[in-house]
Amino acid sequence: MEKINFYEANDFSENTFKRLLIHDSPYFKILNFNFKAGQELPVHSHDIEGQVSLVVIEGEGEFLGRDGVSLPAKTGDVLISDISEPHGLKAKTDLRLLVTIAPPI
Amino acid sequence: MEKINFYEANDFSENTFKRLLIHDSPYFKILNFNFKAGQELPVHSHDIEGQVSLVVIEGEGEFLGRDGVSLPAKTGDVLISDISEPHGLKAKTDLRLLVTIAPPI
Repeated sequence: MEKINFYEANDFSENTFKRLLIHDSPYFKILNFNFKAGQELPVHSHDIEGQVSLVVIEGEGEFLGRDGVSLPAKTGDVLISDISEPHGLKAKTDLRLLVTIAPPI
Repeated sequence: MEKINFYEANDFSENTFKRLLIHDSPYFKILNFNFKAGQELPVHSHDIEGQVSLVVIEGEGEFLGRDGVSLPAKTGDVLISDISEPHGLKAKTDLRLLVTIAPPI
């Protein structure tokens, strides 16, 4: 068993969102992104098999998708997307996001 | 893209912890467990390949392992365990846990 606390191991920056690699194995990759209000993970996709979960740990914003589509994002929201499907996030308040990618990229 | 809010879709019960299936696909299975203070997910394991992440969304307690081992658990903690390695959780306060299993059981 391994344990990490992403509240302690990651912080926020006025410059850009902060990215922390929590875990990487043949099974999944887990990342934490911290956004200050207004910061954005731009819409992106990769043409490979697999899915990604985006979990809003705290904060509010929007999930971003293909063709300018957006969905409200708040604490407790889980978005599931194919890795090949465009996805991103824009923070309205400071926001902690947990991302799990399986299989890992 | 699919979205679910586990703060809204799951609740707490005095009888036992409440389990919500958030997502199940060939890539991963995502569950939310809500524990009232004192409730416990008993130590268990399955003799199969893969890993599980246990993320404490809010609350305090202990991660449980083999032979009575325990580790403190609090908001922001991520525990990674092989599926075949004994793991569990006991809540000291009301606690929301997010569990991801890859590949899915």
